[in-house]
Amino acid sequence: MSQPIILYSHKAGPNPWKVAIILEELGIKYETKFLGMPAEVKGKEYTAKNPNGRVPAIDDPNTGITLWESGAIIEYLVDRYDTSAKLTYTSSPEKYYIKQWLMFQMFNNFHPEKLPSAIERYANEVKRVTMVLNNALEGKEYLVGDKCTYADLSFVTWGALAPFITGEQHKINFDEYPNYKAWMERLNARPAVKKVLEDKQKVMSG
Amino acid sequence: MSQPIILYSHKAGPNPWKVAIILEELGIKYETKFLGMPAEVKGKEYTAKNPNGRVPAIDDPNTGITLWESGAIIEYLVDRYDTSAKLTYTSSPEKYYIKQWLMFQMFNNFHPEKLPSAIERYANEVKRVTMVLNNALEGKEYLVGDKCTYADLSFVTWGALAPFITGEQHKINFDEYPNYKAWMERLNARPAVKKVLEDKQKVMSG
Repeated sequence: MSQPIILYSHKAGPNPWKVAIILEELGIKYETKFLGMPAEVKGKEYTAKNPNGRVPAIDDPNTGITLWESGAIIEYLVDRYDTSAKLTYTSSPEKYYIKQWLMFQMFNNFHPEKLPSAIERYANEVKRVTMVLNNALEGKEYLVGDKCTYADLSFVTWGALAPFITGEQHKINFDEYPNYKAWMERLNARPAVKKVLEDKQKVMSG
Repeated sequence: MSQPIILYSHKAGPNPWKVAIILEELGIKYETKFLGMPAEVKGKEYTAKNPNGRVPAIDDPNTGITLWESGAIIEYLVDRYDTSAKLTYTSSPEKYYIKQWLMFQMFNNFHPEKLPSAIERYANEVKRVTMVLNNALEGKEYLVGDKCTYADLSFVTWGALAPFITGEQHKINFDEYPNYKAWMERLNARPAVKKVLEDKQKVMSG
């Protein structure tokens, strides 16, 4: 692999940063192009790449592929570049459990347009998801097997937003979910995750 | 393969039927267990299988796996039982494009709890998704390559609900999306899809 992957991103949204974490974890060279919202993301040039008009998307000049949907991009990157299975399992049932948790994450993604009208319902949903994760992590360090996989990493940006999405009124006390809290701390302590969250902080404040 | 897969389902929800379509398409033996909502789906026995308390889930006695999240179940079934690649591509980039559209479908799933408050916004979103699909299908019979894959099939139950979800007031004229309409008709004409939609009709009216 020689040429950097192009990651189409937005400063604020969680999903492009989810992909950046996987790129960092796997040591894949990449360049980020930040698009303006909505003009560039909904514009002709970008929607020729991604007809859905959302970020992220990637161009991989090494294979010629253009791909969108963060979950599909993550599985592509792992399939193609994680040759030592650092972030995945190639055995069954583990590889399917990873998919299960990735899909669960996708399904519970924050949909920016669907948010503010129903803060209370949204807060309850965040609580419910946190509890499902907390229970799944009972006696375990990671969701699948005994190592950090892309299933775990797919929750990092969700976890970073979760405390803020519920508003002051419906604030969640994450101390009530000790397995979840320890897991998030474990994920956030990884050098690749730290780097990406710092990069995000930088572009958001810059 | 000798023992039937157990599919945990609900009469009304779209996602278990999405899995049934794949089972039928691949000629996999299966038995459906319909669970009551919310008592059984949220009950102890079922949440021991699926801590998320949602249908579908499957038990595959042939491999011993229990799996939930419709997208992960579909990929498991195709991986394991579609040995002739009837519904998939094993080549790149096609196999990643299939994932991309499956993820797009998952992301735009109807979330029953998040519905009624904002019918207009929801109708606009259904229109948007229909238009994205209509554009992607320009000059093509299927989303990826030149055959029907599990990416196409994952949209069948979404397509069946879409006209009803918007209410009379925001009704969508699907004639404005001829590629989408012809594609849905093509998918709905498949024997496996017909059978599942008829099965659904039967249990809903029975």
